[in-house]
Amino acid sequence: MDGTFIARTFDIDFAKREVVLCSDDAADLGVRTGSRVKVVSKKAASVAIVNTTKKFVKQGEIGLFSKISKELKAEKGDKVAVHPVDRPSSVVFIKKKLAGEKLDAKEIQKVIDDMVSESMSDIEISAWVCALEAGGMTLEEVTSLTTSMALSGDTLELEGNVYDKHSIGGVPGNKITPLIIPIVAACGLKIPKTSSRAITSPSGTADMIELFCNVSFSLAEIKEIVEKTNGCMVWGGAVNLAPCDDMMIQAEFPLDLDPRPLLLASVMSKKKAVGANYCVIDLPVGHQTKLDNLPLGEKLARDFIDLGARIDMQVECALTYGGQPIGRAVGPALEAREALLSVKAGVGPESLIEKSCAIAGMLLEMGGVAPRDRGAAHALEVLMSGKAYAKFQEIIEAQGGNPKIKVEDIPIGRYTFDVKADSRGYVSKVSNSGIKLVARAAGAPRDKGAGVLLAQKVGAKVNAGDVLFTVYAERESKLSNAQVLVNSLNPVKVEGMVLETMNPNNPNIRIK
Amino acid sequence: MDGTFIARTFDIDFAKREVVLCSDDAADLGVRTGSRVKVVSKKAASVAIVNTTKKFVKQGEIGLFSKISKELKAEKGDKVAVHPVDRPSSVVFIKKKLAGEKLDAKEIQKVIDDMVSESMSDIEISAWVCALEAGGMTLEEVTSLTTSMALSGDTLELEGNVYDKHSIGGVPGNKITPLIIPIVAACGLKIPKTSSRAITSPSGTADMIELFCNVSFSLAEIKEIVEKTNGCMVWGGAVNLAPCDDMMIQAEFPLDLDPRPLLLASVMSKKKAVGANYCVIDLPVGHQTKLDNLPLGEKLARDFIDLGARIDMQVECALTYGGQPIGRAVGPALEAREALLSVKAGVGPESLIEKSCAIAGMLLEMGGVAPRDRGAAHALEVLMSGKAYAKFQEIIEAQGGNPKIKVEDIPIGRYTFDVKADSRGYVSKVSNSGIKLVARAAGAPRDKGAGVLLAQKVGAKVNAGDVLFTVYAERESKLSNAQVLVNSLNPVKVEGMVLETMNPNNPNIRIK
Repeated sequence: MDGTFIARTFDIDFAKREVVLCSDDAADLGVRTGSRVKVVSKKAASVAIVNTTKKFVKQGEIGLFSKISKELKAEKGDKVAVHPVDRPSSVVFIKKKLAGEKLDAKEIQKVIDDMVSESMSDIEISAWVCALEAGGMTLEEVTSLTTSMALSGDTLELEGNVYDKHSIGGVPGNKITPLIIPIVAACGLKIPKTSSRAITSPSGTADMIELFCNVSFSLAEIKEIVEKTNGCMVWGGAVNLAPCDDMMIQAEFPLDLDPRPLLLASVMSKKKAVGANYCVIDLPVGHQTKLDNLPLGEKLARDFIDLGARIDMQVECALTYGGQPIGRAVGPALEAREALLSVKAGVGPESLIEKSCAIAGMLLEMGGVAPRDRGAAHALEVLMSGKAYAKFQEIIEAQGGNPKIKVEDIPIGRYTFDVKADSRGYVSKVSNSGIKLVARAAGAPRDKGAGVLLAQKVGAKVNAGDVLFTVYAERESKLSNAQVLVNSLNPVKVEGMVLETMNPNNPNIRIK
Repeated sequence: MDGTFIARTFDIDFAKREVVLCSDDAADLGVRTGSRVKVVSKKAASVAIVNTTKKFVKQGEIGLFSKISKELKAEKGDKVAVHPVDRPSSVVFIKKKLAGEKLDAKEIQKVIDDMVSESMSDIEISAWVCALEAGGMTLEEVTSLTTSMALSGDTLELEGNVYDKHSIGGVPGNKITPLIIPIVAACGLKIPKTSSRAITSPSGTADMIELFCNVSFSLAEIKEIVEKTNGCMVWGGAVNLAPCDDMMIQAEFPLDLDPRPLLLASVMSKKKAVGANYCVIDLPVGHQTKLDNLPLGEKLARDFIDLGARIDMQVECALTYGGQPIGRAVGPALEAREALLSVKAGVGPESLIEKSCAIAGMLLEMGGVAPRDRGAAHALEVLMSGKAYAKFQEIIEAQGGNPKIKVEDIPIGRYTFDVKADSRGYVSKVSNSGIKLVARAAGAPRDKGAGVLLAQKVGAKVNAGDVLFTVYAERESKLSNAQVLVNSLNPVKVEGMVLETMNPNNPNIRIK
C-alpha cells in the first residue's frame, strides 16, 4: 500500500503538483493516472496527482517536476515515501452539483480550499466549471461561492467606505477607468481600482494604464497609494485577490464557457476582497457583447444587486449601450491617447465622456457627494474644471509615472493603412468583434502601439473615398495580417437608403 | 498570427499532444494555455494544445514532448512554424449537451473523432463526461454514441453468427468466463470473448486467464484462434477496440463518475466491434455492487436490450445475485485454481457453477442449441460430460498455454493467515468491498498469488474458532497490510440470533 522511491527531478515549471511513476509501480501501490498520493521526503510532505508512464521513469523511481521537488526539498537520488490517499471530498461535491443538487456553504468552501491549495487536477476543475454551467446555482450558493473566493486570497483593508466599479466587458474601446477613478477620487471617495490585462480583447485596462505608469504593486503599496490619493489604477494580476478565479478561467477558456454563477462570483469576490461596500457594475448591452438584449442585462443586473445585498455591498448597475466601440480608439496606446485627451480637457469622444460621467456620477450619488440624478452633471463639472486631471496626475505620479505625460509621448504604430468608403451612404454598423479581430491581428495588445482608430461611427454620412478607420501596427507583417482580415471581415459597413432590390427572377439581391 | 520557432525536444512520453511556448510568444501568437496550434515541420504537421511557461523554454523556442516530436519528425534545433487554430467543433457540442440539448449522430461522431485523434485535452474530455453525467442521453443518442465508438477503432470480422457475454462487474470472484466460453464454444457457437484487467478490483478476468496462457493477441490472431476453436479468452486492452473508451475512463476515474450513457455505450461498442449479434449481459445486483436493488437493475437491463435492438444485436440480460462474492476465491491465482477445478470436474462452488451454466444456457437458447428453459440444464450437461473441459484445453493450447495444467501448477502466495470466528453464530454478511480491499492490500492483482479464500459464506453456521477465511500474499509486508485492514474492516460478520439488547440506561448496545 506504500513504497519508497528514488527521486528523479525535472526542471520543468508546470503549474500542477504532479509526479510520474512507472505503470508497474503504480499498479503495485494500487494507484493510476489521476490518483492522489502523499509524497514524503526527509524534509517535507506534499500531496500530488499521479501520472503513469512506461518509459519516462524506471521501476523504483519517481519523477518530480520543479514545483513538487522544491516543496519537498528533494534532490535527484533522494529517497521519498509514497502513500495513496483518497480522492478529495470536493470530488463528492462536484458530483452532487452535477446531479443538480444544492451545495451548502461548507461544501463550496471545501471546493475552493482544494482549488487554492492547488490539489485539484485539470479534470476536476473542468468538472466543477461544467457542473456550474449545467446545474446553475441559487443566489444563496453564489453568495457562499463569492465569500469563499473573496477569502481565498489576500484582502485590502482601508479605513472608511470603499467605492469600486467594474465592467463585465465585451465592448472594445471601453477606456472609462482613467476618467472615472480620477473624478471619484477627486471628490474624496476612496476607489482602489484593480483591472485586468486583455485575455481575448485587443486591450485590457491594465495594458493601457501601463503606458502612463507602473501597474504592478503589492497590496501594501496599493494601500499606501490609495491612502495618499484616494484612488489607484493597478493590475489585479499582480496581487493575490481571489486567486482561484484564474484557475477556473483556465478551464472556462478552452471550453468557451462563462457559467453565470462564476461570472457573478468572479466579479464580486474581487470587489469584496478590496473591501468595497459601494459598487457600480457596467453591463454593456448589444450585438456581439456578452448581453444581446436589455432583458438579459436586467436579469443579470438584478442578480448583481441581490448578491451585493447578501455580502453587505450596495450595488447599482448601469446597462450601457454596447452596439459599437466606446470612443474611437481601440488598442493600448491609441486608447491611452484618447483617455488622456478626455481626462485632461474633456475633448474626447462624446460616447466616452458621457458614459464615464454617468458611471462616476452613480458613485458620487451613492457616496452622498451629489444628490440623486445630479451625479453625472457633478462628475462632468469635476472633469471640465480640471480637478479630475489634477487627480489623474497625482495617481500617475504615485504609481511611478510621469504626471506631465503628453499625448505625443505615447508612441503609436508607425505602419498604418486607411480603410475608405467605396460608396456614398451612411455608416450602418461598426462591428465590435470585427474591430477587435483587426486590432489583434495588427498586434494589440502585445504591440502597445497597434490598434484601430475609427474616423466615423454609426450614423455618420460618408462619401466614397472618405476614411472610415485607420489601422496601426508596430510591425509590417502584422499590418498585412490586419489588411487580410479587413478585406474578409469588412468591420465598418456603409449602406445607402436602398438596402436591397428584388425582381421576380432574382428575388434577393443585396446592393452593397 | 503565426511564427517560426526553434524546436527543443523532451524525451517524455506523455500521452497528450502538447507543446510548450514561453508566455510572451504565446501572447504574440494570440494563444494561451489550452489553445490549439497547428505545428508544421519540414516533414509533417500536427495540431497540439498549448502550455505556457515563464522559464521552461525561452522566447523563440517551442518545447516538443516525445509524441509530437516523433509525429513531426522534428529534432532539437529544427525550425517549426506555428499557427493558431480554432477550438474543435466538438467543444460546441459539449456545450450543447451541457445546456441539456440533444445531439445528433453527426455531432456525436465529431466528438468521438476528435477524441480518437487525440486532439482533445483533459479539460475537454472531462467536460464531455460531465455533460453526459448531467445531461444524460436519449436512447437514440446512446445508439449514435455506441456506433461511433464501435467504428472508432478496429473491428473483428467473423463468418456467421457471433455470440458474446459481458458482466458489468461489481461483485468479486466472478470467474464465470472460463466456464461459459468453453461450454458455449463446445456447442458450436462462436464466442470471441475479450476481458479487461483489474482496475479497482483485486482480479480482472484477463489477470486470471493469464495464469493459463497468453492473453495478448492481435485481431488477426484472435480471428485464427476463434476460427479454430470457436472461442477465445483474451485481453481486450491488447487490441484497438473502441479506443476512446479508455480515454473517457481516464476522466471518469478521478471524478468517480460512471454516466449511464457511457456505461451502455462502453459495453455495447466493444461487443459491436467484435461483431456480436447475440449477447448476454450479466448485471450483478446487491449491496456494494453497481446496482443496489432489482428495479435499478431492471431499468438498466431494458436499456441494454433496447440499445441492442437498435444496433442489430439481440441482447438478453441476467440480473444475478451479487450480495457476496461468487464462489470462494478472490485474487488471480486463487480464482484460476477454482475455475480450473470447476471446468474440469464440475466440483467448484455451487454459486459459480449455477451462475455460469445459467448464462451459458441463455446463449445456447439464443443460438438454438437448446430449447427455451432448457439452456442451463444443457450447459450443465456439457460441463459435467467433460466436453467443456476438452474445449477449455483446446482454447488454452491455441492461446499458447499448457492444456494439461493442474491446480497445483498455479502458485499461490506462501504467506497466509486465517481469520477465525470469535463466537458461535451464523455468517450474516460477506462484504464485497471488504473482501476486495483485503485482497488488494494482500497484493492482488499485481501479485497473482495474493487474495482471499472464503471458508464460509452467508448462512453458514460456525463455532467460535472456525476459520472464516484465509488471506494469501506473496510478500510478508503485504500480508501485514492485509492483516491491519482485516482488523478494521471485519469483512465477514458472524452474528447470533440475538442481534442487540436494550435497557433503559443504555438504549442501544450491540452484542457482537
